[in-house]
Amino acid sequence: MKHETNIPYKIYLSENEMPRNWYNVRADMKEKPAPLLHPATGVPMGYDDLRNVFCDELVRQELDDDTREIPIPQAVLDFYKMYRPSPLVRAYCLEETLQTPAKIYYKFEGNNTSGSHKLNSAIAQAYYAKQQGLTGVTTETGAGQWGTALSMACAYLGLDCKVYMVKCSYEQKPFRREVMRTYGASVTPSPSMDTAVGRKILSEHPGTTGSLGCAISEAVEAAASAPGYRYVLGSVLNQVLLHQSIIGLEAKAALDKYGIIPDIIIGCAGGGSNLGGLIAPFMGEKLRGLRDYRIIAVEPASCPSLTRGRFAYDFCDTGKVCPLAKMYTLGSGFIPSSSHSGGLRYHGMNSVLSQLYHDGYMEAISVEQTKVFEAAEYFARTEGILPAPESSHAIRAAIDEALHCKETGEDKTIVFGLTGTGYFDMAAYEKFHNGEMRDSIPTDEELERSFALLPSLQ
Amino acid sequence: MKHETNIPYKIYLSENEMPRNWYNVRADMKEKPAPLLHPATGVPMGYDDLRNVFCDELVRQELDDDTREIPIPQAVLDFYKMYRPSPLVRAYCLEETLQTPAKIYYKFEGNNTSGSHKLNSAIAQAYYAKQQGLTGVTTETGAGQWGTALSMACAYLGLDCKVYMVKCSYEQKPFRREVMRTYGASVTPSPSMDTAVGRKILSEHPGTTGSLGCAISEAVEAAASAPGYRYVLGSVLNQVLLHQSIIGLEAKAALDKYGIIPDIIIGCAGGGSNLGGLIAPFMGEKLRGLRDYRIIAVEPASCPSLTRGRFAYDFCDTGKVCPLAKMYTLGSGFIPSSSHSGGLRYHGMNSVLSQLYHDGYMEAISVEQTKVFEAAEYFARTEGILPAPESSHAIRAAIDEALHCKETGEDKTIVFGLTGTGYFDMAAYEKFHNGEMRDSIPTDEELERSFALLPSLQ
Repeated sequence: MKHETNIPYKIYLSENEMPRNWYNVRADMKEKPAPLLHPATGVPMGYDDLRNVFCDELVRQELDDDTREIPIPQAVLDFYKMYRPSPLVRAYCLEETLQTPAKIYYKFEGNNTSGSHKLNSAIAQAYYAKQQGLTGVTTETGAGQWGTALSMACAYLGLDCKVYMVKCSYEQKPFRREVMRTYGASVTPSPSMDTAVGRKILSEHPGTTGSLGCAISEAVEAAASAPGYRYVLGSVLNQVLLHQSIIGLEAKAALDKYGIIPDIIIGCAGGGSNLGGLIAPFMGEKLRGLRDYRIIAVEPASCPSLTRGRFAYDFCDTGKVCPLAKMYTLGSGFIPSSSHSGGLRYHGMNSVLSQLYHDGYMEAISVEQTKVFEAAEYFARTEGILPAPESSHAIRAAIDEALHCKETGEDKTIVFGLTGTGYFDMAAYEKFHNGEMRDSIPTDEELERSFALLPSLQ
Repeated sequence: MKHETNIPYKIYLSENEMPRNWYNVRADMKEKPAPLLHPATGVPMGYDDLRNVFCDELVRQELDDDTREIPIPQAVLDFYKMYRPSPLVRAYCLEETLQTPAKIYYKFEGNNTSGSHKLNSAIAQAYYAKQQGLTGVTTETGAGQWGTALSMACAYLGLDCKVYMVKCSYEQKPFRREVMRTYGASVTPSPSMDTAVGRKILSEHPGTTGSLGCAISEAVEAAASAPGYRYVLGSVLNQVLLHQSIIGLEAKAALDKYGIIPDIIIGCAGGGSNLGGLIAPFMGEKLRGLRDYRIIAVEPASCPSLTRGRFAYDFCDTGKVCPLAKMYTLGSGFIPSSSHSGGLRYHGMNSVLSQLYHDGYMEAISVEQTKVFEAAEYFARTEGILPAPESSHAIRAAIDEALHCKETGEDKTIVFGLTGTGYFDMAAYEKFHNGEMRDSIPTDEELERSFALLPSLQ
């Protein structure tokens, strides 16, 4: 076993080395992300427009393009200490089986019961809701990781938690639902008869199994119609990227501790929460001209917002009740083909990441799910950890980069984000084992039809 | 949040603080555990008798009552570094919500894909099989944690792995099965038509959903009839306790690092692998008269081998092909009522632990599963981690001890073993949430009928 004796398998920061501030990458962007617009009027939305939907402090964070460092509240730091710092792992075994000169590290966010990085923002959002004296929060969940994370955070703080879970996930993933119930959350299959938007969708499409965009609309309506409730979201928003910067800050501190400078940083990308968090401090150095890194977003070929989408204002939800955001989008009406990476099936990409990609600060690639599961299984057998399908997009890209290094003989240092575990995704693994998994990529015509429905206020 | 600034939430050892030897508690026992006996002749079994079933080195470890410290092979140490040291966590949040003056620590073994401590012995056993030049190993699994752990270890070392999975688990836990398949194991529902013992059981009980004792018999037969294969077992054996001593050694090193001396050590007990591993170095000090600890084994009321069993020689499996062991037993024909702690449903208890209990070195209590799930949910909501039902037996006892401290005002230090996570046990949590979980305790008459069938060679 190749093992550099000065670098352990897992680099853990001590408690007093943990970051005490989140890093807001917008402060270092010359081209700021475009503002959110009102869905009906097209007018930029300010603090007063947004605080009916979101908690006050979270609106401030959403709109803050200037403050570089934002203190993490003590209660959030205390909660972080229950499952953080997460390890930065040197993938010695993977390097050895690949026979690559590359050095591979991964930041592993799966060692908490939510099974992913989502908890980093869930606790922050729940904390600000509690601080504001609210009764509870509503949200949607697709694959279930965000709903689980929010349930955990709310249980810890004594806050009500109402989750609209996309109906097909609710039925296919009963165990995810039970985890949320263990944490005291109420879980409703979406679309439901609880909301006007749900009833409308059910009357128009009686047999529908739901979608994330629809569940968002229901959760927003439920928050607006219940006193003392606000809506919270696990990705796409700038505030979420801010909270998730803890991933990158810890990773960078761990690397710095051993004098390691990465060449390539790789993250999977759905709405952008993990990618934006992982790359934040590295992107900051790049924006400030201090250092250069290759930064690669990896998205599913079935839902390729960065690689094949339009950079345009679009609706964030099916019901068109949420603000409009300027982002790389496949169109809010785009329905990705069946895929087992539920966390990467969102039609758009966070505005900050979209702007950075548009301005050439990062690359993006898309990969097919059979290739992703090949990488997932290979990784599980060599590194032990059973990865989530979402995370395995990054594994695929990291392996491909490491194999490229093998060809060229370069000993590049690769860091990728391993966002979570696949324990609730075994039905997908089963399909893969049985040779029943198919790849499905949207045609250009499908995308053109979807783009034609983009709002006309570009 | 109460937080002693000098003691972090999680105490991690660094790589160079990790133990390099396993600790063999038998070396410090005045009364050694009774030898294994041949199931047909009743004659004590030696090295040559056992090596047809087990790997050579593992037989040596099984029979070694004298060597106190046994070096951990470098390859096993390397593998340990992929997921160890496991954290010793200070349960600050649990203490706070319980309002107890007690200090509670738990050694958390769930942060690896097998989801439990089982991996500690799986990698050791697989390593010795590989060293011996074997092709593969066979085993049984009930709840699936051991089978998963062994699959991971075999995938890492390139060894075949054939798992006989109790049929009802195979059908009820398809995701566990898929995890094993991800690691390349072949998984057969037991009883099967693959073995003579399986065919016999199926012909006598056509509709049977299997049992652990039956799966053991099949796995032993499969190993004996395939050249280059040996049988491995995840609990009950002394070699397993030896490997699992890594849990207690790490826990003790972490406590020593901060000058913490526990008063009470609590572990859940099925076959004894976790309990024996956790308590090993503490028991060693107790046996040598260096320090006193209260050591508490917690078993399910539905399968109470220590608290209601007989200390007697008994068969280890249903097919009566395995050696006879002297242990606390409910009788090899005892079938515990349906319970959701599959890992604690074994009829007997490891011989070392049985002897220590018999000699008064530890206590034992039994708890009902509804009380266990109450504690599990309480723990999940306060400490975040979703515990396995098995582990939650220890949580129940730790909470009860902490509440007792609250009454008496004592600030005792409690350490318990949190052996694993409950991600594959959500069907049980669902029953609990829906109020459908029942407790079932064997009657004295049932136990007497079972004891009547104990072999007569006591």
